Amino acid sequence: MMSKSVYPTINAERLWQRHVDMAKLGATNGGGVHRLALTAEDIQAHVLLAQWAQAQGFSIALDPMGNMFIRREGTDPSLPAVSSGSHTDTQPNGGRFDGITGVLTAFESLETIHEASIETRYPLEAIVWNNEEGARFIPACMGSAAYAGMADLDDALARKDTQGITMGACVADLAKALPQAGHRELGAPIASFIESHIEQGIRLETSGNIIGAVTGMQGYRRFVIQVIGEDAHSGTTPRARRKDAFVAATDMTHALRDILWDDQDEMRYTIGRFEVLPGGTSVVPGEVKFFIDLRYHDKKALDELAIKIPKVCEAHAGPCDVNILDALAVDPMEFPEEMVANVEAAAARHGFGHERMYSYAGHDARHIARLCPAGMLFIPCWKGISHNEAERAEPEHIAAAAQVISDILIDRATS
Amino acid sequence: MMSKSVYPTINAERLWQRHVDMAKLGATNGGGVHRLALTAEDIQAHVLLAQWAQAQGFSIALDPMGNMFIRREGTDPSLPAVSSGSHTDTQPNGGRFDGITGVLTAFESLETIHEASIETRYPLEAIVWNNEEGARFIPACMGSAAYAGMADLDDALARKDTQGITMGACVADLAKALPQAGHRELGAPIASFIESHIEQGIRLETSGNIIGAVTGMQGYRRFVIQVIGEDAHSGTTPRARRKDAFVAATDMTHALRDILWDDQDEMRYTIGRFEVLPGGTSVVPGEVKFFIDLRYHDKKALDELAIKIPKVCEAHAGPCDVNILDALAVDPMEFPEEMVANVEAAAARHGFGHERMYSYAGHDARHIARLCPAGMLFIPCWKGISHNEAERAEPEHIAAAAQVISDILIDRATS
Repeated sequence: MMSKSVYPTINAERLWQRHVDMAKLGATNGGGVHRLALTAEDIQAHVLLAQWAQAQGFSIALDPMGNMFIRREGTDPSLPAVSSGSHTDTQPNGGRFDGITGVLTAFESLETIHEASIETRYPLEAIVWNNEEGARFIPACMGSAAYAGMADLDDALARKDTQGITMGACVADLAKALPQAGHRELGAPIASFIESHIEQGIRLETSGNIIGAVTGMQGYRRFVIQVIGEDAHSGTTPRARRKDAFVAATDMTHALRDILWDDQDEMRYTIGRFEVLPGGTSVVPGEVKFFIDLRYHDKKALDELAIKIPKVCEAHAGPCDVNILDALAVDPMEFPEEMVANVEAAAARHGFGHERMYSYAGHDARHIARLCPAGMLFIPCWKGISHNEAERAEPEHIAAAAQVISDILIDRATS
Repeated sequence: MMSKSVYPTINAERLWQRHVDMAKLGATNGGGVHRLALTAEDIQAHVLLAQWAQAQGFSIALDPMGNMFIRREGTDPSLPAVSSGSHTDTQPNGGRFDGITGVLTAFESLETIHEASIETRYPLEAIVWNNEEGARFIPACMGSAAYAGMADLDDALARKDTQGITMGACVADLAKALPQAGHRELGAPIASFIESHIEQGIRLETSGNIIGAVTGMQGYRRFVIQVIGEDAHSGTTPRARRKDAFVAATDMTHALRDILWDDQDEMRYTIGRFEVLPGGTSVVPGEVKFFIDLRYHDKKALDELAIKIPKVCEAHAGPCDVNILDALAVDPMEFPEEMVANVEAAAARHGFGHERMYSYAGHDARHIARLCPAGMLFIPCWKGISHNEAERAEPEHIAAAAQVISDILIDRATS
């Protein structure tokens, strides 16, 4: 056994090549990746990871929620795993790094430690959380939430995509594609969890640091607003007799802009999904369904706004009816100091410029923090562009992330 | 030959049954019809009409634009046809009467005249104009526009639906389904054209009259607005750095509401199609495409607004780019007095309450009026609801329309 004081160097070239290989699964013409959760492309990504894992002799397990665990055994079989990971799914026409970098740096760490023949007391795991993006199945971070007991398994498996396919059917497809996978219970103990991710902002790019030690994560709220009017002929129906769902819905989104405005520009109010039905050019639309995505660091303010949002929507419904689903409420959270310090120490050891920072995006580590000490690190992301085909991260920054993760896994698994 | 002074009575029961049969093609769960232009369902509607026509010994012809002509020959083969008709296509989740009633009343008239063994000097035709709704292929009234030389055939056939299927491919499918059809040249002479249609408004319902003699039709403008922003992460991207296409697009639609507002409530401004891309809940949308439908009776005001609309959109683009397509400009028009008088005379003959009225919807008769004397009649439409599954017309009103059409065809074809 090597001394713990020697931290093996990760294989940056292999790590980058793995990104290149993964980016082929769901590659878009615009240079991005379109790999929605547990589509054929995403299942291919799981299978490819499993092949790499088995080439190293690591085992594979799936839990009933479709989360995947790649495991290198430790010397004490009674201990839970020291783990790292993220997700393989992307946004529609998303990028090549969001999620997959956290999976591949975790896997690279396992390979590095394995090839350096370092024995660990704790087993090591690289974890792929299912349906992080929430782009195909609502809500986001479904896999980690179900694992952490924050979401009901049966409810999650019953969720349908826009074509009516259930998450349960997709998880069955994944299991079929990985017949060699063992079984993992939901909520089974984890010793610790560290997730690396692109920042999806410009703070590291601006400061010149390459590692962000994440201290906490903003909370968010999601609402689904269904505005019901009445289809009508656009030429013959006077304004006074219309029940125009588009007019009502955009009156709502405008009014929400006023109450969700902060001078500090820290509140994040987004309408990214807005569907107008039936969608004919000459039909006054009888229905609009839209999704409110609101994020903020202040729990009290979020709670107050969550009460105001339905009232504002109702007040601007005009002649239409409105149904409001309070779809998701996640409070702001903080990571334990020991994990933040782990990241800082590993970054300092290798001379990587680093700083503490807050996360404005939601990540799986939020849920896993309920089960065990959890933390995150960020690396720079070109111009902060993410959820976009143009998303870019540098090979040397990804390598730095893997090095920090590898160091932390060694420290925690051999302690 | 029967005397022209005796007008045979149309078969109201058969006419209603034909509506019932047609409503099965594209029937929706909500009791409406979803039969977009030259889909399998719409081609079935053409084939069914052709079967009925052939059972009476009428001939069928198609022109290169996919318009269909059902013909009963007259005694003078040198004369063009006295004609009536409308369209078989519907809006998405549309109704059972818009369009098809004009086709079936025309066809019922041919059958009635034929079964009464009335010889006519002019041939009679029931015409189905292709793609009136413009719901699948833009623009609306494409078939009649191409026939009247108001649209270019090659351009029309190259138009694509949202799945990339061309109108040309659909017209070829139609021709394949009707191998017995003869060939009609685009723009071949027509002696006269009368179209019956549901009012799609509440004026007849309010007055208690059952026949509207249509005097003219409002003009309209269509614009396609493409707003280009930048996809971004909804959690991490501050407002100041967003290029949010939804925000820009709804600023435009709000600003347009101000300039397209008239106290008389005669201007019709509608956003019925509004597409947000990529459409993820947590993605600041990088693109919105929306369609402006504007209708008004005053050509001068329409011309002025058509200049203002692009300026208003550009002024509210914020950090986004905007591309504006001036897609369609159709001026208000009036039908010749002789056709309006024809409708009034036939309605009076049968004791049908009638009134003159203006049309706030666009119809194929608008284009055909450039080729020959053309006119229209309206019948009541329950609560004015149209372009909607709940669209409803009464059997006795439909029968009245067929009676008026039959009378007019006899008068004009035997004169």
